[in-house]
Amino acid sequence: MIHSQLIDPKSIVVVGASNHLGKPGGKLFHNLLSGTFRGELYALHPTEKEIQGRPAFADVRDLPCVDLAFLAVPAAACPALVKALAEEKSTKAFVVVSAGFSEESPEGAVMERQMVEICRKHDAVLIGPNCIGVMTPAYQGVFTLPIPRLVPDGCDFISGSGATAVFIMESGLQKGLSFNQVFSVGNSAQTGVEDVLAHLDESFDPKQSSRVKLLYFETIKNPRKLLVHASSLISKGCRIAAVKAGSTDAGSRAASSHTGALANSDTAVDALFRKAGIVRCHGREDLTTVASVMQLPPLQGKNLAIITHAGGPAVMLTDTLAKGGLDVPRLEGPRAEELLSHLFPGSSVANPIDLLATGNATQVDLALEYCENHFPEVDGVVVIFGTPGLAPVFDVYDVLDRRIRSGRKPIYPVLPSVVTASREVEVFLSKGHLNFPDEVLLGEALVRLAATPLPARLPEVSGGENRSGLRTLMEEAGDGYLSPREVGAFLDLARIPRVREVVVGQESGLQDAIARVGFPLVMKVIGPVHKSDVGGVVLNLDSETSVLQAFERMKAIDGWEGVLLQSMERGMEFFLGATWKRDSDT
Amino acid sequence: MIHSQLIDPKSIVVVGASNHLGKPGGKLFHNLLSGTFRGELYALHPTEKEIQGRPAFADVRDLPCVDLAFLAVPAAACPALVKALAEEKSTKAFVVVSAGFSEESPEGAVMERQMVEICRKHDAVLIGPNCIGVMTPAYQGVFTLPIPRLVPDGCDFISGSGATAVFIMESGLQKGLSFNQVFSVGNSAQTGVEDVLAHLDESFDPKQSSRVKLLYFETIKNPRKLLVHASSLISKGCRIAAVKAGSTDAGSRAASSHTGALANSDTAVDALFRKAGIVRCHGREDLTTVASVMQLPPLQGKNLAIITHAGGPAVMLTDTLAKGGLDVPRLEGPRAEELLSHLFPGSSVANPIDLLATGNATQVDLALEYCENHFPEVDGVVVIFGTPGLAPVFDVYDVLDRRIRSGRKPIYPVLPSVVTASREVEVFLSKGHLNFPDEVLLGEALVRLAATPLPARLPEVSGGENRSGLRTLMEEAGDGYLSPREVGAFLDLARIPRVREVVVGQESGLQDAIARVGFPLVMKVIGPVHKSDVGGVVLNLDSETSVLQAFERMKAIDGWEGVLLQSMERGMEFFLGATWKRDSDT
Repeated sequence: MIHSQLIDPKSIVVVGASNHLGKPGGKLFHNLLSGTFRGELYALHPTEKEIQGRPAFADVRDLPCVDLAFLAVPAAACPALVKALAEEKSTKAFVVVSAGFSEESPEGAVMERQMVEICRKHDAVLIGPNCIGVMTPAYQGVFTLPIPRLVPDGCDFISGSGATAVFIMESGLQKGLSFNQVFSVGNSAQTGVEDVLAHLDESFDPKQSSRVKLLYFETIKNPRKLLVHASSLISKGCRIAAVKAGSTDAGSRAASSHTGALANSDTAVDALFRKAGIVRCHGREDLTTVASVMQLPPLQGKNLAIITHAGGPAVMLTDTLAKGGLDVPRLEGPRAEELLSHLFPGSSVANPIDLLATGNATQVDLALEYCENHFPEVDGVVVIFGTPGLAPVFDVYDVLDRRIRSGRKPIYPVLPSVVTASREVEVFLSKGHLNFPDEVLLGEALVRLAATPLPARLPEVSGGENRSGLRTLMEEAGDGYLSPREVGAFLDLARIPRVREVVVGQESGLQDAIARVGFPLVMKVIGPVHKSDVGGVVLNLDSETSVLQAFERMKAIDGWEGVLLQSMERGMEFFLGATWKRDSDT
Repeated sequence: MIHSQLIDPKSIVVVGASNHLGKPGGKLFHNLLSGTFRGELYALHPTEKEIQGRPAFADVRDLPCVDLAFLAVPAAACPALVKALAEEKSTKAFVVVSAGFSEESPEGAVMERQMVEICRKHDAVLIGPNCIGVMTPAYQGVFTLPIPRLVPDGCDFISGSGATAVFIMESGLQKGLSFNQVFSVGNSAQTGVEDVLAHLDESFDPKQSSRVKLLYFETIKNPRKLLVHASSLISKGCRIAAVKAGSTDAGSRAASSHTGALANSDTAVDALFRKAGIVRCHGREDLTTVASVMQLPPLQGKNLAIITHAGGPAVMLTDTLAKGGLDVPRLEGPRAEELLSHLFPGSSVANPIDLLATGNATQVDLALEYCENHFPEVDGVVVIFGTPGLAPVFDVYDVLDRRIRSGRKPIYPVLPSVVTASREVEVFLSKGHLNFPDEVLLGEALVRLAATPLPARLPEVSGGENRSGLRTLMEEAGDGYLSPREVGAFLDLARIPRVREVVVGQESGLQDAIARVGFPLVMKVIGPVHKSDVGGVVLNLDSETSVLQAFERMKAIDGWEGVLLQSMERGMEFFLGATWKRDSDT
């Protein structure tokens, strides 16, 4: 769906370009003019002859053919403009920044559908409406600030909310986070977050593509697509961090379904992300911290060294890492003694490596040298170095610059004096480096990354018959809920393994059932709703005698209709998102 | 212990003052000169005749009498200088910023003890050594930067680590956090964090004293003192936030004690803080965010309104608040309709109150007016307002300024465009306001504050006999551990209520024991170590028959020596920090 005309257009028109930089069309044109775009850039304006020094066109018909069109005009004017451009100017990509569509009114929704229909007919891609725009290495087509640092190995960022994207970039800027492509999908009329991710997967080039993907969304329209392409990208060496907001609202709706914790959509999102290998974040600061960690070389183990001239932050970081399952291992032996001998009296190399308040650039360099080459147990290094304001710390940050460039192990800089050493931090960031101003937020990000498993191997995709069987089953579930029997059939059709189970109504059937299910097993009464309350669930039955005893006892329960025996074998995890079951676009 | 000579000295001498601003004594003198100090300021230097434009003294004997002395000279010179000043110049307060004492070597520890002894003898207060100094409204005696905004209702901040204090102030500065007094206690040779807190409690003036106290420490030397004075300050209307770092190290040591989860010192710190009403924080960003919330009027309920021009951040904040037990209640009824009628089409007042990207200052003002005066269910308001960079937002922040000054309900400003709107944010902060750049970190702080209970009423202090009994018991515990019987005696002496329990060796004793303990009760086998593994613990016994059955069964357990019956009555919480039991200064 996403064409090269969107990613690397030869020509762009801004419909609604303006000389007024306080207007979206004006700022968008300005950002395109002052950015990296080197193709033909046209402005469309009904009356102005010149826009920001460029000649302006009054009518679409006067334009040459054009690959990509930005629309920054009132909603009502958009469908006709999209039609004219698609039909007469071979335009294959549209970015509609205008608002006033489905997010505002039923009439807006009609216009939005019209644009989608026109684009479908002409095989054109539509981004938006109601978005801030798109940035790729070829152009910066947004009407907002800030424009972040754009480099080939920066993050690819897809956002379901424009303003949130702006504020996420603000948060990233202070850490030196860089970007490669930014997509604001707005109302996702045609192209949603998952669709852009699918494009990034399908167009992935191991030599050139960025390896960090960031997502922000409030609804996951197509969890299957997200799962497939996120897993695929991660298996190609990418890392993905995402915020799925709106979890509590959805959670309360799901709670009405009587299916308990698993049906809580937040749990389902957690499960989906875990399965896909996506690191789940919950806020902007969180997302940009995790993203910054992802931009550094991966931590190939659990052991961190901490080099610092300030004990307290190192202690707080150690707490955070240790609580989260990472280690700050004790450094011992001749090499550690050797390092210690080069430091001031009172220093420690036990880890944290504490250089004391008098620690200097030479010592930081030496400690990094030892961590890189002489302490094989160290997988990565955090350097915490600010200033009390007695002297500049350019020399320390120059050491960091050199070591980060040359080292194999990741080095995480914590430069806390963002006010007193603002100039030094600025120069350091300008060299393309990152800063984690708060060590505990860094520690939490490291922990979260380490705790996110690699994507699960996806189950084989079911064949045509199964898929249609699944669809039939869905469509027949009148009220939107599936009965336990239907759930079982659903899982079997989807070839999702489940535990062995047998229903037994007579004592005579027990022996055969045990043989089929196997020990240990659980017995559940059939009939009563609140099984546990009436003693209708017994776990860990592991002998014929205990099964018989439990069977006899359950027969006496009011409402008894029989019992269900289920295997308690481990490792039979499955993923079931009840709220997504009607999604048709798999 | 802490005198007015430390808090509000009439005269100060800096021993080791220098013309070199890169030296601690130089910067300290400079900070004193350029700060609020209006008394006599002297410089002591062996050779220089003038320090930073002030005449310098070469010898202590040449000085007039002086209230407060800062020492910034090598450690070896300090004890004699303290002695001379205390004996000959009536100096009653010493702040030793020099390092090289107990933190470095046994010789340093000796010199540190000498200074403490001299101060004790002359009834003088000693802060440090190895600290950054002290700031009060009367003077700014630190050798570091930044010097934060100092105002009477700023935070009182006590830190066990100087560099950490510096970096905490850096973190606070960006949010506009202000301070009143800052104490860096360094090695706490004489005066520790708890001692300064006790002073703040004992000198508390409801008309003038600041109501927010911040603590950073790595060891709690005197938990009882902390508990008493923190509770007392909170009962006087103060709020306290603290970082206790080093929890995992201590925790692993405590784990060796075989006393399980309760003895984990981190759990003990949690319990102590909860009992005292202290909000526990785990990092710098965390601490300064909680402190900023504390500086605003208290939230008198659980209901927040969120006013925003950006949906995403409001959704993430709503998630955070809802997960943490706070509410973002639906706003309905005629007043809500009325407000909606004044907003642009597509806006929402359901809460979050979403003004859309086109929202302006007038609308923010109106929404705040409704939250303040027409929505009684709203206890506080978060305003999320940044900019996409099309126009300045001074007008919106002016509205915030006015509303924060005049409103009764707390207003929490989230101004995320710290880069694009840096000038607007700066002007807003310069008026004494706060900014929470990340809404999720704000939400977490609000949740934590709401979840911290008021201090528990302290148990009556035990009398003299009990105290000496407790001390005897401690001293007799040779290896540092108490036997279960000794723990029981300890709790009884301290008048800490505990559950009723009786040991029974014969079936004939059961009836009497049941009468004394009462149902429901727990039976535990005496003898075997891993009781649960051998079925030696039975909970919830509530009839004579069940007690008898359990007794018969346990008799058969290998190593049986009898059983312990204990009441299962609820509400018998007690606090026991095993690692603190040898502390003698209660």
